[in-house]
Amino acid sequence: MADIRPVGWDDGEACVVVLDQTRLPGERTSVACRTVDELVDAIERLVVRGAPALGVAGAYGVALALVEASREGWDEQELNRSIDLVRDARPTAVNLARGVDLARAHVPAGLQAVLAEAHRIAADDEAANRELSRLGADWILARVERRPLTVLTHCNAGALATSAWGTALGLVRELHQRGVLASVFVDETRPLLQGSRLTAWELEQEGISYVVQADAAAASTIARGLVDVAVVGADRIARNGDAANKIGTLGVALACRDAGIPFVVAAPATTVDPGTAHGDEIPIELRSEDEVLSFAGARVTPVEARGFNPAFDVTPHRLVDAIVTEHAVVEPDGTDVVARLTGAASPRAPHS
Amino acid sequence: MADIRPVGWDDGEACVVVLDQTRLPGERTSVACRTVDELVDAIERLVVRGAPALGVAGAYGVALALVEASREGWDEQELNRSIDLVRDARPTAVNLARGVDLARAHVPAGLQAVLAEAHRIAADDEAANRELSRLGADWILARVERRPLTVLTHCNAGALATSAWGTALGLVRELHQRGVLASVFVDETRPLLQGSRLTAWELEQEGISYVVQADAAAASTIARGLVDVAVVGADRIARNGDAANKIGTLGVALACRDAGIPFVVAAPATTVDPGTAHGDEIPIELRSEDEVLSFAGARVTPVEARGFNPAFDVTPHRLVDAIVTEHAVVEPDGTDVVARLTGAASPRAPHS
Repeated sequence: MADIRPVGWDDGEACVVVLDQTRLPGERTSVACRTVDELVDAIERLVVRGAPALGVAGAYGVALALVEASREGWDEQELNRSIDLVRDARPTAVNLARGVDLARAHVPAGLQAVLAEAHRIAADDEAANRELSRLGADWILARVERRPLTVLTHCNAGALATSAWGTALGLVRELHQRGVLASVFVDETRPLLQGSRLTAWELEQEGISYVVQADAAAASTIARGLVDVAVVGADRIARNGDAANKIGTLGVALACRDAGIPFVVAAPATTVDPGTAHGDEIPIELRSEDEVLSFAGARVTPVEARGFNPAFDVTPHRLVDAIVTEHAVVEPDGTDVVARLTGAASPRAPHS
Repeated sequence: MADIRPVGWDDGEACVVVLDQTRLPGERTSVACRTVDELVDAIERLVVRGAPALGVAGAYGVALALVEASREGWDEQELNRSIDLVRDARPTAVNLARGVDLARAHVPAGLQAVLAEAHRIAADDEAANRELSRLGADWILARVERRPLTVLTHCNAGALATSAWGTALGLVRELHQRGVLASVFVDETRPLLQGSRLTAWELEQEGISYVVQADAAAASTIARGLVDVAVVGADRIARNGDAANKIGTLGVALACRDAGIPFVVAAPATTVDPGTAHGDEIPIELRSEDEVLSFAGARVTPVEARGFNPAFDVTPHRLVDAIVTEHAVVEPDGTDVVARLTGAASPRAPHS
């Protein structure tokens, strides 16, 4: 199996190293972020992306801020302002702020303590992904009769979006390893093509059969009975089970409901936000209209055109058949999902 | 108002002249098709496209075949084979075959009779578009309360897709002329970007306010209450009211139904096919996977990737709130819509 790790810490150089996802699949190169500004830029440009990966990047970002503070002689205020820049680099994924906050709590104990926390977050994320993949595969195989089965996914919730292994794509890997996966429909995921570029690249590495389609094809592919289940990641899950994910996810959920096939959200417990009551409270990042108006540097619309480019949408819990974390599979019914999804309701506490 | 006519006949040169829609909006150039092969190529490459425009192009194609037959000394069999090439150049829009058949019936009477029929088809199409725009606007204004109102459209059902004026976009023009239109959300329409390139260009020429979004944004734009009504064209309407249109239309319809806003199909009566009982019988054109795998000549997926590229989808009648032709607005209920939509049920016969 291909071992893909999108974020790491380089001890020798004391910097955050990220796999440059803007260059995939053509080129596999890494970017060394030696300053907080460089890391924030990498996060904003989606050099590193995906809610769980942003959590890890955020934690390492706190370590990077400490290194830079020591090198530049920053006072505590400047350090905190710098850490806040990382925390606020993107608004929708709750994991980023959470990773930063967890690591920041260790700042008084010094760099090694912060790094240890960041490493723990990364390791926990990978373990969570592998466990939620098992739980999710069990649920799907109990629910879907066809063997082998075909999955549709939107955007990239793979190893590239996490510390390793992946959430929605981790679940796909698990189905493949169990020998029950026929193929994957990969939505290309405009405007930045995370599906065509990143999910296709991961599946190619894994030797999993797949086909890329325009996002607009998803509804009819589902309606025509070509898909047995849709599995997507999440950037934030509200208390009532509403889930934010890449723009276009709502359309997939609507098509699944209309066709009567299950729509599954797979994410680690860190994506569940007890501070968000329902989806309307999730801040939706509006990205540059140029991402929609141009392609590969060439303008496709009339020069006067304006674009509307929300990066995420919210799928209401009523359209979600199952939310899978490493703790449980919950079929949301509008009641509070936090305790079950984060393990607080079970004897096994989170991160234990 | 901008007068946009995508297909015409050049009497001096005896050729079909089409506005090259693959070059818009960057460049406004025309292509002269002097042979049937050149016209078929233009149809296949979407130099000319849109169901009603294909009907007109098909009719002129018969004239072109007659000219070429006379020049090249073809026998009747060769002439008929050539006309069939035009008829079969694209499978989904019923208008193409119908335009060819109507013109072909005049072949025994000679070139001028064929041309007169083609000119009549073009003129009737424009008149139909203007009338269906009035009827559709009346229906929408009776149904939607907000003033001014915001429309969402998918693909290009404008002047470029017809002889002139447009169907869905004709209806948008009508709302604009009545002073009740706030703005238009334009789905970019992957893979060939007819929305970003063509619909945006037409609206720009018309001075109508619009914004371009990724197709995947449509569902949440609708769910968030930013849109009052969706209006799309059609490539074929079955007897029960199922409607084929550009891939992604089904997703728009699903989002409209979920949000409780009307989904309107606007097309001339020539798009209604009495020979198709329901949507499952409509042949869906599968186009080259390269359209999905590459962009502007650059590969975006891994080189090994395969693509799935259906050009159309079918929206079942249960998701269509209204079908508008020049004869009537029908709210489909699963019963036969042909008589009402084609005027056969009214004292006013088609083309009278």
